[in-house]
Amino acid sequence: MASTNSTAEGIARTASSASYILKAVAGSERNAALTAVYKHLQAAKDEIIEANRKDMAAAEEQAVAGKLSRSMIKRLDLSKPGKWEDMLQGILDVRDLEDPVGKVTLATKLDNGLDLHRVTSPIGVLLVIFEARPEVIANITALALKSGNAAILKGGKESTQSFAAIARVVSSALGTTSIPPGAIQLVETREDVSALLDQDQYIDLVIPRGSNELVRFIQNNTKIPVMGHADGLCAVYIHEDADEEKAVKVVLDSKTDYPAACNAVETLLVHESISNTVLPKIASALLQVGVSLRCDLASRKALESPGLPTAMKAIIQDATPQDYHTEFLDLTIAVKVVSSLEEAIVHINTHSSGHTDGILTESEEVAERFMNVVDSAGVFWNASTRFADGFRYGFGTEVGISTNKIHARGPVGLEGLMIYKYKLRGNGQGAGDYGSGKKQYLHQKIE
Amino acid sequence: MASTNSTAEGIARTASSASYILKAVAGSERNAALTAVYKHLQAAKDEIIEANRKDMAAAEEQAVAGKLSRSMIKRLDLSKPGKWEDMLQGILDVRDLEDPVGKVTLATKLDNGLDLHRVTSPIGVLLVIFEARPEVIANITALALKSGNAAILKGGKESTQSFAAIARVVSSALGTTSIPPGAIQLVETREDVSALLDQDQYIDLVIPRGSNELVRFIQNNTKIPVMGHADGLCAVYIHEDADEEKAVKVVLDSKTDYPAACNAVETLLVHESISNTVLPKIASALLQVGVSLRCDLASRKALESPGLPTAMKAIIQDATPQDYHTEFLDLTIAVKVVSSLEEAIVHINTHSSGHTDGILTESEEVAERFMNVVDSAGVFWNASTRFADGFRYGFGTEVGISTNKIHARGPVGLEGLMIYKYKLRGNGQGAGDYGSGKKQYLHQKIE
Repeated sequence: MASTNSTAEGIARTASSASYILKAVAGSERNAALTAVYKHLQAAKDEIIEANRKDMAAAEEQAVAGKLSRSMIKRLDLSKPGKWEDMLQGILDVRDLEDPVGKVTLATKLDNGLDLHRVTSPIGVLLVIFEARPEVIANITALALKSGNAAILKGGKESTQSFAAIARVVSSALGTTSIPPGAIQLVETREDVSALLDQDQYIDLVIPRGSNELVRFIQNNTKIPVMGHADGLCAVYIHEDADEEKAVKVVLDSKTDYPAACNAVETLLVHESISNTVLPKIASALLQVGVSLRCDLASRKALESPGLPTAMKAIIQDATPQDYHTEFLDLTIAVKVVSSLEEAIVHINTHSSGHTDGILTESEEVAERFMNVVDSAGVFWNASTRFADGFRYGFGTEVGISTNKIHARGPVGLEGLMIYKYKLRGNGQGAGDYGSGKKQYLHQKIE
Repeated sequence: MASTNSTAEGIARTASSASYILKAVAGSERNAALTAVYKHLQAAKDEIIEANRKDMAAAEEQAVAGKLSRSMIKRLDLSKPGKWEDMLQGILDVRDLEDPVGKVTLATKLDNGLDLHRVTSPIGVLLVIFEARPEVIANITALALKSGNAAILKGGKESTQSFAAIARVVSSALGTTSIPPGAIQLVETREDVSALLDQDQYIDLVIPRGSNELVRFIQNNTKIPVMGHADGLCAVYIHEDADEEKAVKVVLDSKTDYPAACNAVETLLVHESISNTVLPKIASALLQVGVSLRCDLASRKALESPGLPTAMKAIIQDATPQDYHTEFLDLTIAVKVVSSLEEAIVHINTHSSGHTDGILTESEEVAERFMNVVDSAGVFWNASTRFADGFRYGFGTEVGISTNKIHARGPVGLEGLMIYKYKLRGNGQGAGDYGSGKKQYLHQKIE
């Protein structure tokens, strides 16, 4: 993964050159490269785990000094049971997915002997910026190679030693294949990233994973297209005819299955006609597992009148307008009573980040209206927002989740790393041969 | 097309509100709106032609003062035989295309009673900036309505009266349908456009058509994704085994069919082994129709030695390095001799704008190598670059041609105006129900 030139431009140019080779390599060769990466990582386990221990020790020092959370240390740890094996298996899983390169998605006979095919092809050069999770480098490497894209990788600084060790192994693995090692390059410092964001001549797509601040910084500081999401502000709306049991279950799972995830619910909207019946049941279930409720006036009133225990009522807080724009990423949820499906839809289309929003209702008509009009990447009926995930969707893996309005939306797997080109195969035709009084186009679908 | 608020933010917000209504409207209603637009335009022909005459008169004055070209006046003229009828027929043609909204592109049973569908949906709000051709407003209006997108339109200033007249008619036509008139809005001044480029909260995609300078200005002055092309720097490479007749024909058509078009060829690359045989034939054909040749040393030498008439040799010019980066948009072509297919590919991947590049060869293997490795939206074998066009590709029409590396590439029809959403229909499931020792995902394809 060493680059011949360690300036940002040199790294980007190296990636660009490698990408032209990678584009032309057969699927079997890309798969062979993934097998080589797998085998080399397997053989270098001790060396990588040793590097990972150094990251862990440094993180431990930071944690003792109060500068790093315990959960960060957990995420760094490659020796955790199953983690190493999962990382390696993930490479083989990606290898065994269908080849996304060279699929014909449109075929038209413009005329006899003039055939047009639209064929999927790699985007080119990806810049992927991700959190301090050492296994992600293997995952992104696998996705990039499988999709025929060169990638420049930057991981969170807490995992520097682990990344460097894995990067060395990937580089030497690629050295044994037809893929140039420059196809996967690692950059180590935050400064490198800033300079790389200027390389729009060579880099085709930036994929940031990480904090809102990081994603926003990148969106605001590059002309390169950015794919990802700054916020995951998901809402669940409980319609008047919702099944109580399903509503309690789905809200609880959406909020508590993994509160720090981008697909956790942050806002609960409840139809006014069930604010005295279903809402208290949901509130009680949430409060019991320690979720803080930030309530508007109507939901607070509804929760104060009937059956909630006094101790629970006491911990209900008043919501501020800002709470309905906030991704808490924690055991907190904003609650609001609405008077209709349409009010819920308008609230969501105004406040949502376009990630995933759900409805609980027993009416198919109501659900379809919600799913058609709510403009988010995921629109869910009677199911937890937590299902918004590439693995759960059956993509094998994901490179990230996008709230973009173009190219790719929702969990992005291999397909989101592809573009296409038009191949036209002729026999010496000129466009001037066609037109009024001349040859006519056939425009027949080629089967 | 009037907006309730004529500030850029007001226009953008109006478009955004309209887009949420448009997203939920059935295909039959969008088609009915197109029929209404068609009928209202037909009824208002006299009024629109009168407005167009005012534009023509003003343009005539500008032309007399030397400030406008004659070809611009020609393009403005809606009374030219067939133009009005073609404009109206175009609306019906778009109406009769397959509905691009709501197509299921992926369907997976995650579990029994937990079905995932990926469904095409409109992007939202488009800002389309185009040249002074009055018929384009009808075309873009049709594409936007058919695809369920709201659009803000800005046409070239020379056609202001025509645009305003057409816009009034479109607005009153929409007033008779279920589509809010705010779905299609016209802005009139350049200042409006600058302010609209800041409305990334409401506008999802900018589509500029026009000069390189305009497109570059827009790309450099907005955070909204831009789809289009600044340059159309197309090359044709003549391989050593090319058929002479096809080579002459394809180069001549690529250069002279419509030299001002983005899909006209600007650079001719010729294999050295045929520089004394095929190149003079091509050069002679080009020179005879008044094309200027800018030659590198090798091609100049090749053309000076053998059969070209002396008068022709005299008008051959030396190429500067800049000529291989130049979109002449005129009867000029840069010529270069290369020593191999690979040198031609590297030249193209370095200099091309990624629009359309072609090869002339009788070898399928050579052609496939070229088409796989040249990284352009169109890669053509033995066919004129001029075929790169939405109508010729059979898309019915096009909103523009894109050299982007993500979302849509090449001629962009209705499909390029779509994104998708994931609809998940469940029965109260939580993500916490699944995992090791719990329920397992089925991930079965739904037929």
